[in-house]
Amino acid sequence: MEAKFPPEPVMTDVTTAWDDKFCDRCKMMSSSIIREILKFAQMPDVISFAGGLPAPELFPIREFEEACAHVLKTDGQRALQYSMTEGYGPLKEALAERMGKYGVTTGPNNILLTNGSQQALDLLGRVFIDPGDVIVTGKPTYLGALQAWKVYRPRIVGIPVDDEGMQMDALEAALKTENPKFIYILPNFHNPMGVTLTLERRKKLVELAAKYGTPLIEDDPYGELRFEGKDLPPIVVLHRENVIYLSTFSKILAPGIRLGWVVAPENIVRKLVLAKQGTDLHTSTLIQMITHDIVKRGILKAHTKEIKRVYGERRHLMTTSMEEHFPEGVTWTKPEGGLFMWVRTPEHINCMELLETAIENKVAFVPGTVFYPDETGLNTLRLNFSNAQPDKIIEGIARLGRVLREAIG
Amino acid sequence: MEAKFPPEPVMTDVTTAWDDKFCDRCKMMSSSIIREILKFAQMPDVISFAGGLPAPELFPIREFEEACAHVLKTDGQRALQYSMTEGYGPLKEALAERMGKYGVTTGPNNILLTNGSQQALDLLGRVFIDPGDVIVTGKPTYLGALQAWKVYRPRIVGIPVDDEGMQMDALEAALKTENPKFIYILPNFHNPMGVTLTLERRKKLVELAAKYGTPLIEDDPYGELRFEGKDLPPIVVLHRENVIYLSTFSKILAPGIRLGWVVAPENIVRKLVLAKQGTDLHTSTLIQMITHDIVKRGILKAHTKEIKRVYGERRHLMTTSMEEHFPEGVTWTKPEGGLFMWVRTPEHINCMELLETAIENKVAFVPGTVFYPDETGLNTLRLNFSNAQPDKIIEGIARLGRVLREAIG
Repeated sequence: MEAKFPPEPVMTDVTTAWDDKFCDRCKMMSSSIIREILKFAQMPDVISFAGGLPAPELFPIREFEEACAHVLKTDGQRALQYSMTEGYGPLKEALAERMGKYGVTTGPNNILLTNGSQQALDLLGRVFIDPGDVIVTGKPTYLGALQAWKVYRPRIVGIPVDDEGMQMDALEAALKTENPKFIYILPNFHNPMGVTLTLERRKKLVELAAKYGTPLIEDDPYGELRFEGKDLPPIVVLHRENVIYLSTFSKILAPGIRLGWVVAPENIVRKLVLAKQGTDLHTSTLIQMITHDIVKRGILKAHTKEIKRVYGERRHLMTTSMEEHFPEGVTWTKPEGGLFMWVRTPEHINCMELLETAIENKVAFVPGTVFYPDETGLNTLRLNFSNAQPDKIIEGIARLGRVLREAIG
Repeated sequence: MEAKFPPEPVMTDVTTAWDDKFCDRCKMMSSSIIREILKFAQMPDVISFAGGLPAPELFPIREFEEACAHVLKTDGQRALQYSMTEGYGPLKEALAERMGKYGVTTGPNNILLTNGSQQALDLLGRVFIDPGDVIVTGKPTYLGALQAWKVYRPRIVGIPVDDEGMQMDALEAALKTENPKFIYILPNFHNPMGVTLTLERRKKLVELAAKYGTPLIEDDPYGELRFEGKDLPPIVVLHRENVIYLSTFSKILAPGIRLGWVVAPENIVRKLVLAKQGTDLHTSTLIQMITHDIVKRGILKAHTKEIKRVYGERRHLMTTSMEEHFPEGVTWTKPEGGLFMWVRTPEHINCMELLETAIENKVAFVPGTVFYPDETGLNTLRLNFSNAQPDKIIEGIARLGRVLREAIG
């Protein structure tokens, strides 16, 4: 993309009065390595399992068209005007009702609308993390949470995650000595691992949280995308107001609208509202009203059913292809929902280096180490199965199989 | 708004494991007093000059409908998918071109799209302000900037603003001794005062900024809403890459979409992008593409002309009514654009107390003191002239005149 102007040299990397003005906090900001990888992954002919994108061919575009037209025709002045920081009332009510169906008893005042869950993570960091505070996450964990929180300078204690979710004995050892501000947990179809916290561990988690008085942040972007097995109760149902629950429309509707929500006790919602007011006043009124209109039309149930069918097929196709093409010594998780799968290679393989060979062979993934707060996990990688078409999955996994066989020797 | 459930007591103000977990930063967060005032201002029969809302009857609703339909029909998958943190490329190009017309020579890489200018203010604080840093603002200044920056704990040095804008002798005195990180300036139709920095002072400002090596943040939400007099060159034209320039679609299109932009040297844009990535990944793709579609349709010029006509008439009606109804000893600014006007009462009047009497008399304003970093300015108040219909302006000013006459005695 070339700029048609400027007519003369412009604001490139010239020396300015700003140059020595960056603050210490900037040192804690790093670009997601995923973003750098995505640049390569977008090269022609590369089959990418690197991103975390939903399948765009499933987006309910027609429903968005209808909702946009309806909202603007019937309530256009409201949709384009400033609105409350807390969020659009009718959408908060609909979400409270929705949460009620999962056994979470809340009212609209327990809900804050955010610009995707990422903003919820930032606001929580802003409201709870003092420099030096200990926070507990999985090891690995969602990269966006690490990015959001690092600027607030916590000490992050990572707890190993296995095929049954976060390891509870390791968690208890940490709680005994570390007095963390909170535990951050992704119970369903964990990003990056795809694993789900078992019911037994959920009960143990809540028992430990109560014993040590440690509150929890439950991040649940994929909970509704279970295509196999049985739903398990959210942590917030088991431990109620000691849990702040996050979810989003990104995976059940569309990520490009940037709309998520927080469920929390009222006094916490009030603090988060103050924090949000200073950061962007409120989330787009138009986007909230369009989304409310779509929710009201009652299409979400049928729509998520369709997403689950497609993602389930793609996950199945991917694991079947892996069984065929991946060499001995390589193992992987078998997610029952969500968007991601986790691969472990033999210890001597460095998946950061493996990515270079993979890109040369026109296939891309995310090295697992970027999801580890302590930058370990070098022999792991994350694959996304939601975005690629079936033929691409088959061909991409065959390519990755060749790369792995060559590396393992 | 009553919740239909909960079936049992829910997350209200119960004791939870979160209660002692709020961080020190929270102490710096306060709700905008304006928001509290707006609650009273929204009572039936109250004529409010308190908010900062555009006239909703001027929103180009039909153009939004057309743009929504066109974007979703022609490029729906892109509009609903994740996108780049920097913003939608074609909109950045259009904005760079637009800036070029004002004499600001930039390319798309100098532009970052934000969730309204408020997010730009937050990101700038996040990237530049270390605790204890001095920053210079007007006294009074935009309340949202104070709210955005206080959490980063700067020491704010306020420079008096008169009818010609920020006072340059006071600014120089501060620059001599304080070594501030930056100067924050609202040159056109200042919020809350409505005043415009004269050309002479603009030149002096740039001379001082160069002399002391202090960079500038130029906040220009209202620059295109001049209904009288002649446009003056933006500070960024006079001092180029030492100035970070902010603007927004809130006042020329609609605030409910939450879309603003930053113009800055590339290395600063890159830092702001990192900061934004951690806070919300990116701004709504759909909103950016809809806005780009509207910009491309070329309606903005005719649309801002209409806004200026209406606001100019309302400002004129308001000052004419004030001349008729306000008692001696009360003075006011005569803005040549924007949304706000500033009233000074005799020294012994406390406009915070005056507001109570005003609400009793069914008229509302914002006490000026809330815009002062040092909480002085008790004998001032802000009036909005963009939102109220002409008959309300006449009646509201008559009511406020009675309240003022009674208070002054």
